[in-house]
Amino acid sequence: MDKDNFKVAVIGAGLVGSSWAIVFARAGFKITIYEADQKTRAGVLNSISLKVQQMVVSNVIQNHDKLMAHITLTDSLENAVKDADYIQESVFETIDTKTAVSLEIDSFMSSHAVVGSSSSGIPSSEFTNDCTNRNRFMITHPVNPPHLHKLVEIVPASWTNKEAVAICTELMEKTGQVAITVKQELEGFILNRLQGVLLNEAWALLEEGSASMEDIDKALTFGLVPRWTCMGPFETIDLNAPGGIKDYAERLGPLYHAIGISREGATPWSKELIKAAEEERDKLLPRNKLEERSQWRDQQLLAYAKFKAQQEKQDI
Amino acid sequence: MDKDNFKVAVIGAGLVGSSWAIVFARAGFKITIYEADQKTRAGVLNSISLKVQQMVVSNVIQNHDKLMAHITLTDSLENAVKDADYIQESVFETIDTKTAVSLEIDSFMSSHAVVGSSSSGIPSSEFTNDCTNRNRFMITHPVNPPHLHKLVEIVPASWTNKEAVAICTELMEKTGQVAITVKQELEGFILNRLQGVLLNEAWALLEEGSASMEDIDKALTFGLVPRWTCMGPFETIDLNAPGGIKDYAERLGPLYHAIGISREGATPWSKELIKAAEEERDKLLPRNKLEERSQWRDQQLLAYAKFKAQQEKQDI
Repeated sequence: MDKDNFKVAVIGAGLVGSSWAIVFARAGFKITIYEADQKTRAGVLNSISLKVQQMVVSNVIQNHDKLMAHITLTDSLENAVKDADYIQESVFETIDTKTAVSLEIDSFMSSHAVVGSSSSGIPSSEFTNDCTNRNRFMITHPVNPPHLHKLVEIVPASWTNKEAVAICTELMEKTGQVAITVKQELEGFILNRLQGVLLNEAWALLEEGSASMEDIDKALTFGLVPRWTCMGPFETIDLNAPGGIKDYAERLGPLYHAIGISREGATPWSKELIKAAEEERDKLLPRNKLEERSQWRDQQLLAYAKFKAQQEKQDI
Repeated sequence: MDKDNFKVAVIGAGLVGSSWAIVFARAGFKITIYEADQKTRAGVLNSISLKVQQMVVSNVIQNHDKLMAHITLTDSLENAVKDADYIQESVFETIDTKTAVSLEIDSFMSSHAVVGSSSSGIPSSEFTNDCTNRNRFMITHPVNPPHLHKLVEIVPASWTNKEAVAICTELMEKTGQVAITVKQELEGFILNRLQGVLLNEAWALLEEGSASMEDIDKALTFGLVPRWTCMGPFETIDLNAPGGIKDYAERLGPLYHAIGISREGATPWSKELIKAAEEERDKLLPRNKLEERSQWRDQQLLAYAKFKAQQEKQDI
């Protein structure tokens, strides 16, 4: 895979697609973005440029213009796709939209190209069945925005071929992303399943009054997260008992099983609970400050990305 | 609460107790450590000194000797406790041991003193019932080691008085720890419940073959954790939909509920699963490298603690 000759297309230039463009361009790939909507298209390059400027200010990258020079915008899906070796599809997440766009990509793509969809929940088997090249389609689900998060979940359908998965994995690694392979199309893939069970417990703790929302949030950020910044949950417990993971699992397995079954029969988050949660959040962050706080979060993510990059250099 | 006159005792100088000593001494409190075991006692100050040296090398603190000068070691529980305003109990976690030591502390403590136990699972009502001053006892559960993790879960028993909780909370804040209040004595408190449900899902994903152990670990570290470094799960979802937490909960609540109920009826982690997990970990980290990797983790935690301290200064 040679960066000078391997061409990337990004289909759909919303928040996810435009951030993907940064990921590929930052790594030195030439990319073409296609966006159907005229109004969105008119603002895309400016919006990307602003994000890249933030990265320069935060000293995460050095050269704004060099990165931007890798990005071309087009109003023709055919032009974006026909010469592409890899196509990142990031259109609106409904089965109908994904199906229509996948068929359109399918009709123009070269037979060696690979297509990844940013779908966060719908598996590709639900919208690529009728594509001639369906064995080159899969899910490549990023964390939003991808230029500030390394993880990508690669989820092949039953008909996706291994070579296509290998190409996609290699590309993600070349961009500096961290690709993981989800071996079957399960609901929520891996990331949102892990997030989901933790959220379910957090909502249950809130509902029963065991702690305030603010304290539950602190338990994660100041308690569990520091070690998870350098290790996942399995390595964490492997290092948390003298005899490793087996020792830990034998000691604490019964407690965790008891915690698990204590929530069985849970009903969905109720309207009343959601309303109460919104009121509690409103006291911590007034509803008109959401956008401002999101910008603060992105600054924090940039600073963290820079910290991690420095750490990784020290590790080598 | 005046640091020059507020005296702290640490009862039990294992890994947790000796790390607590660093927390209090770093904040400028005078502390006395009591350790019953002669052999452990002989090594305590040296072991603390080594940890403090690591902190100096990592530039997290400046002055080794100044910190060490705040720490006194004693072989008399009475001497440690009788003048103390706050007593951090960190002895072996069995009901029998905690009961015996709590009664001994109770017999020597002043009536205005407050006692926090480092218990990670046993609630204080199970071992302080017979103490004369039982309304001054509670759980103050740290993440191990406390000098590298800010979170402390304060869990009062039904008979713990509010003034004692307030003193303990103020003290934790003065040391730079982040105290949260668990409003009832529930199994696993908050932190281990959140960790537990995530671990249960991780083990289930591993058992069904949905992803490798290494990939599940990466999903957390490179996917979910970056935003959790600056926000907990509730704030994360509040900023992850245009209309805030209500918008998010209405859109994604059904998915998370489906994920939750998909694991109902789960059995405890089986012996076969634990064995398979140990074998998979062994390939990632040979069993004779656990100690070395734990030291690496502590270095990472130190670096992260320094990063967070810098970020917090920028936030103000």
